[in-house]
Amino acid sequence: MSADIVPLPRRQPEEPASLDPILSLTAPGMNAVNAVILDRMQSEIPLIPALAGHLIAGGGKRLRPMLTLAGAELVGYQGTRHHKLAAAVEFIHTATLLHDDVVDGSEMRRGKAAANIIFGNPATVLVGDFLFSRSFELMTEDGSLKVLKILSSASAIIAEGEVDQLTAQRKIETSEERYLNIISAKTAALFAAASRIAAVVAECNEEKEEALDAYGRNLGVAFQLVDDALDYDSNAAEMGKDQGDDFREGKMTLPVILAYARGDEDERAFWKAAIGGHRTSDEDLAHAIELIRRHGTVDATRERARMFAQRAIDAIAIFPDGKARQAMAEAARFAVARGY
Amino acid sequence: MSADIVPLPRRQPEEPASLDPILSLTAPGMNAVNAVILDRMQSEIPLIPALAGHLIAGGGKRLRPMLTLAGAELVGYQGTRHHKLAAAVEFIHTATLLHDDVVDGSEMRRGKAAANIIFGNPATVLVGDFLFSRSFELMTEDGSLKVLKILSSASAIIAEGEVDQLTAQRKIETSEERYLNIISAKTAALFAAASRIAAVVAECNEEKEEALDAYGRNLGVAFQLVDDALDYDSNAAEMGKDQGDDFREGKMTLPVILAYARGDEDERAFWKAAIGGHRTSDEDLAHAIELIRRHGTVDATRERARMFAQRAIDAIAIFPDGKARQAMAEAARFAVARGY
Repeated sequence: MSADIVPLPRRQPEEPASLDPILSLTAPGMNAVNAVILDRMQSEIPLIPALAGHLIAGGGKRLRPMLTLAGAELVGYQGTRHHKLAAAVEFIHTATLLHDDVVDGSEMRRGKAAANIIFGNPATVLVGDFLFSRSFELMTEDGSLKVLKILSSASAIIAEGEVDQLTAQRKIETSEERYLNIISAKTAALFAAASRIAAVVAECNEEKEEALDAYGRNLGVAFQLVDDALDYDSNAAEMGKDQGDDFREGKMTLPVILAYARGDEDERAFWKAAIGGHRTSDEDLAHAIELIRRHGTVDATRERARMFAQRAIDAIAIFPDGKARQAMAEAARFAVARGY
Repeated sequence: MSADIVPLPRRQPEEPASLDPILSLTAPGMNAVNAVILDRMQSEIPLIPALAGHLIAGGGKRLRPMLTLAGAELVGYQGTRHHKLAAAVEFIHTATLLHDDVVDGSEMRRGKAAANIIFGNPATVLVGDFLFSRSFELMTEDGSLKVLKILSSASAIIAEGEVDQLTAQRKIETSEERYLNIISAKTAALFAAASRIAAVVAECNEEKEEALDAYGRNLGVAFQLVDDALDYDSNAAEMGKDQGDDFREGKMTLPVILAYARGDEDERAFWKAAIGGHRTSDEDLAHAIELIRRHGTVDATRERARMFAQRAIDAIAIFPDGKARQAMAEAARFAVARGY
């Protein structure tokens, strides 16, 4: 036996994972998509491109259109129809972000002042409506009724999910089941649709369509779970929004649902007050983060996310191995690992 | 000569006109449309039908879907596809009303508390999004790409018109030209689309499509002109909204644009202050109404409306005379005469 002290390995909770493979896979296509986005957010009313551009140029990851492009690579699609449709997907997403910011009274988005702060709620609502209409114009130009059905249905489900989330806000009794329903609707439905339409333009069979849908849907759930975990993760290196927003808004996300379930009587009383909007100071947030750490519910949330990411990866196992499948699998692992 | 004093006839500024003929023409179809509306505003999220129902059951005239049904009668369409599409039109309209009420901070709508007052801005924005998505689901179910193109384009134009109106708000220098562009976009585009799609489902030729489009478009302009006149018409018997809303919000509508143009220096100073938001008391409103009466700009606005209504009537002269054409012509005359 050696006398050297072997240090315990530092906790490496995730395999290293990166978005780079999917970024390079989709880079040429994303240039085309970005060109459509910039072209079609124009209007004779100058406030529209000004407001839309503030958010669109604001450095989002464009994950959803990327899924359409990656899916197209995966199924070997050779055409260009998916560029317009991927732009339509991003417009739907942008419209929901604009409306979300009004709904939540957000102050920051992607590290900048949110559009509603700069341009006001009225213009932000209306430009969201414009982008939403524009997305349906793009789909109609493409002409696939199947794509229109998938994306109009996803849009209705997103709105339902957002309303459901609003209804659950400040309700401490929200269950994990209901929470999962909410994020499946408000986030995963568009991920699923964005992936699925790649199979539709490529005229794949139903099995492949379903596989891409399942990839996107599970990835979307994983993505939202980690987003919600990051809001309470004191170790988080990367923050997409102001930490503590969910707490102050009384949103019932999984780290809180589990901390409430695992907590003792005093802790539950604290959560009731906090989610009810009566304890929302910085000290209260620090206490919430401490309780969440005590019960390991950020890790538990990531654990759920890991399972959904694995389901995403398994869903595309029916496709031949190759660059596209590997990039998509790594994107799913990245969705779980990000923030570390 | 008789010794009897013949009284001067009371001022009869319009021929008597009524919505009754178009109401009876479309009554059976409207039952079918209402059934679609009630069915498709449902959701598992109870807040959605509650909020949507508050506005939808709130006694709107359903003028836009009525135009689709009347147009279908005019062209002799025998099918039922237009019921779903007319419901889609009403959903688009309802979505824009919900968003408008948030944008304007309205307190009343159709004589009841506005949805945003009862349910809050967040839910009102999101249920608008839901209805908007639902309308595209309905169109997609119908399956006509031509209808989808007409209505998605109209939706984008409505949003542009609303943003443009927002930009013109509190700007005294807004011209009649710009005002007409705004109302053509925010109001007349949907009237035009609602009428036009009747010709599309009936597979009419381009000439008939254009004729129905022109009918709806001109009717929409006339309708909005009179709406804007009523906001300053001290004789108005019927008020769809709180009189003076436009004044307090600094909206540049035609009665104000003309009163400013025709006013002397003092009057212009008053209008600048009022539209700028610095003179919005009840006394200021009374003074504004007095200036508008002095320069006859409510009547001048109605005069414009009469011309647009006549263009609407002339546009459908290419169709054979009959119950449908007469009902549509009388609806156009009613649009001008209402409020007397």
